[in-house]
Amino acid sequence: MISEKMERLGRHRSVIREIFEYGNRRRAEIGAENVFDFSLGNPSVPAPREVNEVLLRLLTEEDSCSLHGYTSAAGDAGVRQAIADYITKTHNSPADASLIYLTVGAAAALAVSLRALLSDGGGDEVVVFVPYFPEYRVFIEAAGGRAVEVPVREGDFMIDPDRLAASLTEKTRAVIVNSPNNPTGTVLSEENIKELCAVLREAEEKFGHPIYLIADEPYRELVYGGVTVPYLPNCYPDTLVCYSFSKSLSIPGERIGYIAVSPEARDAEAVYAAVMGAGRALGYVCAPAIFQKMIPHLLGKTADLAVYQKNRDRLLTALSDYGYECVRPDGAFYLFVRALEEDAISFCERAKRHELLLVPSDGFGCTGYVRIAYCVTPEQIERALPAFRALAEEYKTEKNHG
Amino acid sequence: MISEKMERLGRHRSVIREIFEYGNRRRAEIGAENVFDFSLGNPSVPAPREVNEVLLRLLTEEDSCSLHGYTSAAGDAGVRQAIADYITKTHNSPADASLIYLTVGAAAALAVSLRALLSDGGGDEVVVFVPYFPEYRVFIEAAGGRAVEVPVREGDFMIDPDRLAASLTEKTRAVIVNSPNNPTGTVLSEENIKELCAVLREAEEKFGHPIYLIADEPYRELVYGGVTVPYLPNCYPDTLVCYSFSKSLSIPGERIGYIAVSPEARDAEAVYAAVMGAGRALGYVCAPAIFQKMIPHLLGKTADLAVYQKNRDRLLTALSDYGYECVRPDGAFYLFVRALEEDAISFCERAKRHELLLVPSDGFGCTGYVRIAYCVTPEQIERALPAFRALAEEYKTEKNHG
Repeated sequence: MISEKMERLGRHRSVIREIFEYGNRRRAEIGAENVFDFSLGNPSVPAPREVNEVLLRLLTEEDSCSLHGYTSAAGDAGVRQAIADYITKTHNSPADASLIYLTVGAAAALAVSLRALLSDGGGDEVVVFVPYFPEYRVFIEAAGGRAVEVPVREGDFMIDPDRLAASLTEKTRAVIVNSPNNPTGTVLSEENIKELCAVLREAEEKFGHPIYLIADEPYRELVYGGVTVPYLPNCYPDTLVCYSFSKSLSIPGERIGYIAVSPEARDAEAVYAAVMGAGRALGYVCAPAIFQKMIPHLLGKTADLAVYQKNRDRLLTALSDYGYECVRPDGAFYLFVRALEEDAISFCERAKRHELLLVPSDGFGCTGYVRIAYCVTPEQIERALPAFRALAEEYKTEKNHG
Repeated sequence: MISEKMERLGRHRSVIREIFEYGNRRRAEIGAENVFDFSLGNPSVPAPREVNEVLLRLLTEEDSCSLHGYTSAAGDAGVRQAIADYITKTHNSPADASLIYLTVGAAAALAVSLRALLSDGGGDEVVVFVPYFPEYRVFIEAAGGRAVEVPVREGDFMIDPDRLAASLTEKTRAVIVNSPNNPTGTVLSEENIKELCAVLREAEEKFGHPIYLIADEPYRELVYGGVTVPYLPNCYPDTLVCYSFSKSLSIPGERIGYIAVSPEARDAEAVYAAVMGAGRALGYVCAPAIFQKMIPHLLGKTADLAVYQKNRDRLLTALSDYGYECVRPDGAFYLFVRALEEDAISFCERAKRHELLLVPSDGFGCTGYVRIAYCVTPEQIERALPAFRALAEEYKTEKNHG
């Protein structure tokens, strides 16, 4: 009699959480240092010291009622202006404070954007590139839409423009792009983005209505080796950028981010009104006030991301040496590695016997891979390497005797 | 092509916000001290000093990653336990940490609870007592339901059990109760609650399924003159309490509250699972972490509420003297006063000429009244009294000449 869909969603713990809970039990049994948990995308580096400095200053200097009081639903006007200025300056892209909506993190930004963009009748389609963050499907379906899965290219995890073109129909309302990517770590190349945008523009013309690009960008600053992440609205104006400060500032629990509707998007003002309406309908009154007010002081700052690059390099080299098939990721803090047997779930069970906790790709919509979240200490990586090696050796031995 | 419902919701600014914006313009024109703005329910007293003390301590003493990191979706386990213990102790009512879900304020708690309780097919009915907080309708409709309006009694704003009984059908899924009430300030009496619960129990039996009571309780601690607010689950176990710390701690912008499903509610565990699922679907990952962790140190504490009582007493006495028809409210920070002409909107326009900004009752679902939010400084009240008097005089003069 209650919502069966919601009950199911609440009961079905995500695979990642289940592995994490297993890890907790195992840590209690054999000691934390003997469990090599690579399951969660929880930042392992502290927030930059400016985060606490700014929060302490706000708490000690600001008037309590104005600091902790309601802001306007879209967010504090000055904060939105600071974000707009930052986008214009940093990405050389037009931005408008009156088209920026502060959110309770990137998940809220996605849920709100999808509810705003999808028509009320239901049945609209939203393209997601496989592998993908599993909550995309939850948000799409909650907004009455249908997720259309389009696999990325096998060799480099880039978008396959032909497959994308074949997936677009007159019901396509939006396409979600996540670069740097969870779970592959891939940063879409400038060239690949041009292909993506060309396909979308052609489809917009063919079907005679806008297809909005939702750029899910919590990992924007987490890139290594001088790689840059192109700003999608510069290539494709019909874009809503969903940003979060969770990963760049290592404050994922505090839930602060924003939606920026490009001023050059078709019906930008109507889309923004729908974003405001969706925020209201979903119960968002405003984003947490003190974290809003922190933003102008932290734009462009990041936690010390060097450890992630160090981890990536160390893992990539070692795992390749041991015979794992890895694609070098330029961003985020994930390696997406081919499992050593066809069934990634069974591979992960085997890895567990070596105390390695990995996430099978099945939860991300494809088979045969595992996600390794390397937002851990370098010490954990060093301790884990012999286990990765032993696991690979085990498969080699079996193959030789098989 | 985008969601028309959401666009409409985003464009239709609430009446209260419109009045507030008018106030901003007017303040700029004639000076803030000459505008008597009683439109917004924004707390006017600072947070208790413990709020900032605890936040400063958490920021300086806790490890950054664990302080600012993700908590579990339901909220930090220790925090939930502290809330459960507090409920058991304070309300002498069973509570279970595993049935408590921390939310991004009361609005989120309501939106999530309704999405959880209403069946997926749509068309479920939810009873709201008129006058009511207008967002109830937004959340009910967003969850696919239909708001059924039941007027309260005219003389004392209590629930009319006969009218309630007549409104219940086999489609009734939930009833929202808000005591202390926005906009009337009424605290339901023990006796009235017993009548309410008796009607609901009878209907449950008649229709053969649970009818859940949603207790929206952001004003629980804002009561005056020793009045107490009965804890509804003690009288009616099929209850979800939606609590917020916004008003009690004067931190409405920070968005922290909870849903407590009574352990004695029918299908409590399934309802809680649906709450978890609805939270996920609506994009809530977790409530802001630092404000979660603040809770155990602030349970039972409140801002200094004496000024609200002082304001209530002063206004009530003065307005009654001037000839306004007031019902003495025992809680919240609202007076609900009969307009001096039939059309409350036209009355509020007239009040504006005296620089009095009041909210007509039409936005709360009924005609002929105005809401006066007295969460302002005592000085504003003193300055505003001559305007209230002049407004009443104006109507008297007209009547005498009419």
